[in-house]
Amino acid sequence: MPILVMKFGGTSVADLTRIRAAAEKVRAEVARGHDVIVIVSAMAGRTNELVGWVNETSPLYDAREYDAVVSSGENVTAGLMALTLQEMDVPARSWQGWQVPIHTTSAHGAARIEGIDRAALDAKFAEGFRVAVIAGFQGLSPEGRITTLGRGGSDTTAVAFAAAFDAIRCDIYTDVDGIYTTDPRISAKARKLARISFEEMLELASLGAKVLQTRSVELAMRYKVRLRVLSSFEETDETSGTLVCDEDEIMESKVVSGVAHSRDEAKLTLVTVEDRPGIAAAIFGPLAEAGVNVDMIVQNISEQAQGDGEGPREVTDMTFSCPTDQVARARKALEAAQERGDIRFDSLEVDTEVSKVSVVGIGMRSHAGVAARMFAALAAEGVNIKVIATSEIKISVLIDRKYMELAVQALHDAFGLDKAD
Amino acid sequence: MPILVMKFGGTSVADLTRIRAAAEKVRAEVARGHDVIVIVSAMAGRTNELVGWVNETSPLYDAREYDAVVSSGENVTAGLMALTLQEMDVPARSWQGWQVPIHTTSAHGAARIEGIDRAALDAKFAEGFRVAVIAGFQGLSPEGRITTLGRGGSDTTAVAFAAAFDAIRCDIYTDVDGIYTTDPRISAKARKLARISFEEMLELASLGAKVLQTRSVELAMRYKVRLRVLSSFEETDETSGTLVCDEDEIMESKVVSGVAHSRDEAKLTLVTVEDRPGIAAAIFGPLAEAGVNVDMIVQNISEQAQGDGEGPREVTDMTFSCPTDQVARARKALEAAQERGDIRFDSLEVDTEVSKVSVVGIGMRSHAGVAARMFAALAAEGVNIKVIATSEIKISVLIDRKYMELAVQALHDAFGLDKAD
Repeated sequence: MPILVMKFGGTSVADLTRIRAAAEKVRAEVARGHDVIVIVSAMAGRTNELVGWVNETSPLYDAREYDAVVSSGENVTAGLMALTLQEMDVPARSWQGWQVPIHTTSAHGAARIEGIDRAALDAKFAEGFRVAVIAGFQGLSPEGRITTLGRGGSDTTAVAFAAAFDAIRCDIYTDVDGIYTTDPRISAKARKLARISFEEMLELASLGAKVLQTRSVELAMRYKVRLRVLSSFEETDETSGTLVCDEDEIMESKVVSGVAHSRDEAKLTLVTVEDRPGIAAAIFGPLAEAGVNVDMIVQNISEQAQGDGEGPREVTDMTFSCPTDQVARARKALEAAQERGDIRFDSLEVDTEVSKVSVVGIGMRSHAGVAARMFAALAAEGVNIKVIATSEIKISVLIDRKYMELAVQALHDAFGLDKAD
Repeated sequence: MPILVMKFGGTSVADLTRIRAAAEKVRAEVARGHDVIVIVSAMAGRTNELVGWVNETSPLYDAREYDAVVSSGENVTAGLMALTLQEMDVPARSWQGWQVPIHTTSAHGAARIEGIDRAALDAKFAEGFRVAVIAGFQGLSPEGRITTLGRGGSDTTAVAFAAAFDAIRCDIYTDVDGIYTTDPRISAKARKLARISFEEMLELASLGAKVLQTRSVELAMRYKVRLRVLSSFEETDETSGTLVCDEDEIMESKVVSGVAHSRDEAKLTLVTVEDRPGIAAAIFGPLAEAGVNVDMIVQNISEQAQGDGEGPREVTDMTFSCPTDQVARARKALEAAQERGDIRFDSLEVDTEVSKVSVVGIGMRSHAGVAARMFAALAAEGVNIKVIATSEIKISVLIDRKYMELAVQALHDAFGLDKAD
């Protein structure tokens, strides 16, 4: 029988009533003729409670014990989901990560799935079992210890099972009903997308649309697992939600699929920094070591400056962006580098009142003029652009934070995203 | 290094503060030169919460899923205990039942331990690890599913590890500081015993002293595991608590070690029941099937009765006791048996206002006159005895409930239990 993977996040299994509602959705898919692999998260709040206990017990905890404790939340939900399905006369049983087993690396707290043994589940499905319930977010290390995959790991578990079992689709049930052209809290004209490509979803995920974890989308793209995002709190059918799929499956012709934003960005500029081969490495190496997530980088053209009795030298300004809460760390790392003599600059200018707005679309590859249209739309609203960065399917700009909502709405209109496909 | 097993029950690990206090006791034993195997229960209240969820989800639950859910409580405590010990610079790690593994039968919810693999722990101790923390109450079935051992199972886990690792002792930390000559709430003269034999402890455990589970004492007796019961809420040292051990280790000469009681007993009498071979089986078979825990049984001598036109027949009265909350079930089973014609009796007399009081002591084996002394002490207080039952090291009587406290105090005095050994 065709296998379908269904994943339910923490809010979708927050209590016994919601577990029952989720189980009803599973039963409906079984009735449609699917064998189902269900991936469950811990009941909402449980993982945070367990993490809190671990942190209180041991601030610099042994990650192997952290994983042993924290993984227990998913085990509880898996057993309760199997029991709920059995009560509905759906043949089901639960599996914990070590029982499948789900083989992972030994990187406790952030392990990667290396393989999933199909044998146990295949045998059960052959026996007539219709639903395998899997505790998400966890696996087994080569040393026989329990591992966890890190935040959002249950999405990754779901995609990995879909790939291993050649599932027809991987349905991610969550608290939103799909992927939108932009944040509906910012633009009332935001429209749910019927389909979106993996590449676009990756750009949107990394831009702050928190519906799907970047890693699970990457994995889905690599193994061509069709992902569907839909609501666990509404009636759903075969057409609900948004399908994340290969671009070959997408017929529509829109150049831009969505407008994303990231509110709390900071813009940092190293003024009059010496320009020589290796200077970028000398700046961004220490920042990476300090855990600063540098996003956009712009280097001005070089010019001559008069040194202090050393004759003229080549200098430039180097601008980059990072989340506002990493500014202090960035400043410390750069000043330390200057003290060590690794870099030389006159001053560090910091603007913590900026936001990033991006337009994303695979159509950009074949359509010229997207950037011009974007800049014109912003100019028409009097929004000044501070930094620009582009990729093959994305254009991002840094702007003053006070214009963020305005810019998102203007771009949404300019690219006709409010109109049906 | 000599191995010591230490077990902490649910109230002893109820929160992070108590886990830390328990870990301090473990550290003290490590400092005394022991390698330690720690067995932990779930944090108090957790198991009941999980059981509640299972029962609400599925009243007739799949016991395999019940076990998968309920065992998670001990896994959390085991990880937190290992982390707490690490914070104290004591090398420790946690093991779940399947990791050791602890092999059990497939009787989910009431599994029996069949064997414990020493290899993994032995290797860790050889590496210099000083403490293995084991999640109690659980194991692994031959089918690879998680099992639980039933209520009080963590005591059994502790004794099984002590037997498998030839431990010098198995310390059971609980919320009382030892085994008493009688219930201190009834007699202010109750005295803590320094030592008690396995046999006596078994009689006391089954008589309602809830400190140790019967099954764990049986296992300790079979493998000659020295058990110590002591408080996790007090300062303790090598002499604290009560040692439960082989009678060869007990020097004292007291004939009676303790006075036990069971408050809510009922006495049932089948009046004028036909006396024929097989009548006892015809009565107690249906009671057993109905789940009635019959305790004491007394059969009067037989006499002739005039049947209704059938000529004289042999009749007797049959008296037995059971917990008061099982009386309704017992009555139903006996009346059903009469309707089927399996037994014949004139009436069923029920007295739900009785209690059981027992004296227990291995000294009885070699001392005559214990029963006479017991009956004299009760007679002196005007307490009427309704039923008597004896074993090799125990004499029990049923009496009116209103005399229970008086009887316990009188017997405690009569056998000199208030005086030091």
